[in-house]
Amino acid sequence: MQDLAEALGMHRGSLYHYIDSKEDLLFGIVESAMARFHDEVRPILEGGGPASERLERAVAAHLRVAADEPDELTLLQVEVKALAPDRRVRIVAERDAYEHAWRAFIREGMRDGAFACEDERTAGFMILASCNWFSQWYRPEGPLGVDDFAARFSALFLDALRATPSTVARQEA
Amino acid sequence: MQDLAEALGMHRGSLYHYIDSKEDLLFGIVESAMARFHDEVRPILEGGGPASERLERAVAAHLRVAADEPDELTLLQVEVKALAPDRRVRIVAERDAYEHAWRAFIREGMRDGAFACEDERTAGFMILASCNWFSQWYRPEGPLGVDDFAARFSALFLDALRATPSTVARQEA
Repeated sequence: MQDLAEALGMHRGSLYHYIDSKEDLLFGIVESAMARFHDEVRPILEGGGPASERLERAVAAHLRVAADEPDELTLLQVEVKALAPDRRVRIVAERDAYEHAWRAFIREGMRDGAFACEDERTAGFMILASCNWFSQWYRPEGPLGVDDFAARFSALFLDALRATPSTVARQEA
Repeated sequence: MQDLAEALGMHRGSLYHYIDSKEDLLFGIVESAMARFHDEVRPILEGGGPASERLERAVAAHLRVAADEPDELTLLQVEVKALAPDRRVRIVAERDAYEHAWRAFIREGMRDGAFACEDERTAGFMILASCNWFSQWYRPEGPLGVDDFAARFSALFLDALRATPSTVARQEA
């Protein structure tokens, strides 16, 4: 809190005028990061248009949040357990709702015939793990931007989601 | 340190007979987790046999470490920065070497024609992110075991690595 007060050019005491506790601050950070996923990615997942296009746009939107908020994402993944019980329940529910939106999107693609994977849960974990981990290794000063990585990840995910075991077996035969 | 001493049924002072500091303890934990990846997964990646079979065995071996050591993996992902500089450099080098072993395996599969992805770096990140994140959501008491998830993830990864953009374009045409 002392570091934060100094960075803001405030007295430590004044900081408590705005926030009640460290836990309050943690909650504000993870809630606002979570809100970005719901506001910027879910409308794409739940919107219209071909599933393959929506996949690429949703991946790009998620990677953009991950690139903008690497530290916030680490807190969301590691420090949610430090929240007070009622707030923890709220954040976990929002995180679950976001994961469910991805699974519902994959299931919809399976029904439409756009995707042919067997299990939307494992596929959803693959996509979210890859897109969350991006915040740890992406360097904005590198040669490739967020949209380049979105295109590369989407190509991999699309191939993973589209091929069926029987297609693969036929290719091998 | 007090909690740890109590859990071990020792006096806090006696604990320092075995370890010099909290940082010492952190280093021991992340070093031993890293060693398991090198000892249990790398020999599969670098061994002989069809790339697709090695992929499934290597994924299963990584998931087994992740399932056994979820807390150790979190430390490896989040707390390496808390190590003293010389130790941090060592662990980061070991982590990089492990990532490179995965990329070398994917490149080898691309040369052999087993894989046809365009970019082994993004593909490697997808695989490692998914397999590391597994430690956060896997529940040993659930209906599916580590080998079930290894089979599901491997099927997705294999499809992602095997399909070529031109194959996909042909399927769509």
